[in-house]
Amino acid sequence: MLKIAIAGLGNVGGSVVRLLQQQRDLLRNRTGKRLAIVGVTALDKGKKRSCDLTDINWVQNPLDLAATDADVVVELIGGASGVAYDLVKAALEAGKHVVTANKALIAEHGVKFAALAEDRGVSLMFEAAVAGGIPVIKTLRESLAGNHVQSVQGILNGTCNYILSSMWDRGLDLEAALKEAQDKGYAEANPSADIDGVDTANKLAILSALAFGTVPNTSNMTLEGIRRIVPTDLAFADDLKCRVKLLGSAHGDASGIVQRVGPCLVPLSSPLSQVSGAMNAVMMRGDFVGDVLLYGQGAGGPATASAVVADLVDVARGNKTPPFGQSAEKMQKPSVKASDSSRYYIRLQVADQPGVVAAIAGVLRDESISIEAIIQRGNEVAGSVPLVIMTHRSPAVAIRRVMTKLLQLKEIAEPPCLMPIEE
Amino acid sequence: MLKIAIAGLGNVGGSVVRLLQQQRDLLRNRTGKRLAIVGVTALDKGKKRSCDLTDINWVQNPLDLAATDADVVVELIGGASGVAYDLVKAALEAGKHVVTANKALIAEHGVKFAALAEDRGVSLMFEAAVAGGIPVIKTLRESLAGNHVQSVQGILNGTCNYILSSMWDRGLDLEAALKEAQDKGYAEANPSADIDGVDTANKLAILSALAFGTVPNTSNMTLEGIRRIVPTDLAFADDLKCRVKLLGSAHGDASGIVQRVGPCLVPLSSPLSQVSGAMNAVMMRGDFVGDVLLYGQGAGGPATASAVVADLVDVARGNKTPPFGQSAEKMQKPSVKASDSSRYYIRLQVADQPGVVAAIAGVLRDESISIEAIIQRGNEVAGSVPLVIMTHRSPAVAIRRVMTKLLQLKEIAEPPCLMPIEE
Repeated sequence: MLKIAIAGLGNVGGSVVRLLQQQRDLLRNRTGKRLAIVGVTALDKGKKRSCDLTDINWVQNPLDLAATDADVVVELIGGASGVAYDLVKAALEAGKHVVTANKALIAEHGVKFAALAEDRGVSLMFEAAVAGGIPVIKTLRESLAGNHVQSVQGILNGTCNYILSSMWDRGLDLEAALKEAQDKGYAEANPSADIDGVDTANKLAILSALAFGTVPNTSNMTLEGIRRIVPTDLAFADDLKCRVKLLGSAHGDASGIVQRVGPCLVPLSSPLSQVSGAMNAVMMRGDFVGDVLLYGQGAGGPATASAVVADLVDVARGNKTPPFGQSAEKMQKPSVKASDSSRYYIRLQVADQPGVVAAIAGVLRDESISIEAIIQRGNEVAGSVPLVIMTHRSPAVAIRRVMTKLLQLKEIAEPPCLMPIEE
Repeated sequence: MLKIAIAGLGNVGGSVVRLLQQQRDLLRNRTGKRLAIVGVTALDKGKKRSCDLTDINWVQNPLDLAATDADVVVELIGGASGVAYDLVKAALEAGKHVVTANKALIAEHGVKFAALAEDRGVSLMFEAAVAGGIPVIKTLRESLAGNHVQSVQGILNGTCNYILSSMWDRGLDLEAALKEAQDKGYAEANPSADIDGVDTANKLAILSALAFGTVPNTSNMTLEGIRRIVPTDLAFADDLKCRVKLLGSAHGDASGIVQRVGPCLVPLSSPLSQVSGAMNAVMMRGDFVGDVLLYGQGAGGPATASAVVADLVDVARGNKTPPFGQSAEKMQKPSVKASDSSRYYIRLQVADQPGVVAAIAGVLRDESISIEAIIQRGNEVAGSVPLVIMTHRSPAVAIRRVMTKLLQLKEIAEPPCLMPIEE
């Protein structure tokens, strides 16, 4: 028997309870053990839930779960600090396995907790923390273990992908698409963590850690959300045979890594461009395996519960892998590679008057950035027209200097929209 | 230290040796152990190879590998019988772990060998047997362990996908596309195992076994290759917003399964339709996780070696899962579900004369099959014109009766081309 304690009974927690109950025989067959829930806890005992808690022991204080006879504690509370932090710490210290869906906690404290888990000889597993039901953690940690991973990039936030898809498919502006996503339950009332890219940043930090053996770090990323994207950008992107996607993207090697979160132009020839609605996808490149793409539901109770239970099955089968695929003490502090470069899309809102293009082209020339395409189209609205420039491959540092200089031109009506074009 | 013996040094075997040599430090970091090659064997010791065999112990008789002090034997010889069979049996009996890329062997003898492995307390692993570097075995066996899998379908043969892609992209006929695939090394001199669907059938049998807990079985499949596909079919498919793909496809539950290998019309809205060239992809549906798609290189030395080494890493880490995800003795004999149904594409070559459509429509009416669309187009060539019928959802048994009856009509110039339309 594997004794399981569960903290947090929201969308995911409720689905985990239902899954463990519904698939009892299946799981016994596949693990040779009974997976038994020996305790649960949540904020409000009286709340109506989708799962049946009859005969399940309710524990009032989450921290008490660490003191039960559970073999494994499932943490589904969320947040990088507070109760979630205290519970994971207490459970590991008590020699219990921990399974969590908490991306913020793993991104911030993952290596410390991994070291603690290794010290106590228990597992710390977090398949559900990134891309819901898609087995991206296991793939990086186990299936690609023979590869030097060269890059990992993904559509890791279903809310943003849903919004960008609605904007393109139906011509909505961001506000209307966000409102609709909120009405459908895809976006929170406070959407900042999603649309400002923070959620994607936490997930990318975890994937980078697994891919490159580096300590998860969100502070050394370029981070931008989707607030600046307008329908015009999606139309220009289409002209360039691309879709706009919010990507988390990391590449590098032992000498340094580059991590970026932000909207990108993804060519239609890339499978990532085809990922629409609330779906997630992750593309990994290894030196032997080449490109591997995983695609599926990145959120939602049942899909995420599937990932939580996959971790529980590993524990039940007695399988154990270091949380980040190698000993925590060997994880490197990531050094940031300075040599990032890309082709870029720049949309400027400019006054429709003589000399504008010359002034802008001059700024690019001064930074030795060459132009691959330039498109001006459409009528003046509110005193400006959109002007789009696509550059040849250029250093990121030079582009940042260009952005600063462009902002100082009096012909530029608002901050430019800048997006790298993924290869 | 994990002591590894390797039998077979072709494309895959050579790449495994290279990978283990090149990534020695990486693998030691990730497993905490040295992965050491203690013996190799192949047909011809003198052959020039891409890997360096200096300082590696050559064993003349493959079966002797089972008697060395190796912890694990890697079987990369191939074939369901002969040396490969004897070596795997001997190695397991000697209490050694076995890693193999041999789909025919696993499809035919997998459960028997799994029982032997479980009895001896060792692993039998075969990630490389299906879809090269894509971790489809691990995903089904571990990541989807909490799901009742409802269906699995895939583009599992890169040769056929390359040929069908070339036929569509460049209007080649099958013969020209096959010739080109052979020149590029994607197809064997004798292409039958690929283009007649046998390779796909073996892989599908293995995926079905993992998905449904049934003994792998290729004899209860509908099996057809791509020989009957002509460029006209690809053009009609495009009219219907589909691509033609050779799919291995299985669905079902404990009460019975349906397994099909054959060319299908895949709607452009399905990610599988976008898989082009020699790439592979597998789509799995679980009752909790929903759809999960895995995509990548399904063949080639380095990608397949990545999968072999992933299995070796699991062995080195001390992780062990029953080969088919549950005890071999619990695997069920698959019963065939009779209730398969689909929409169908039927292309007939008919004489261009009065009464033809009436005769054909009468056959369909007599089997209560209703027509969703009918297209006749193009000029008579060699005494016939193509006539394409798309049916509404119809029982497979009724369609098979229709095919028999159509063949008896004197207006039909050659056997019809029949393809299900995937949803």
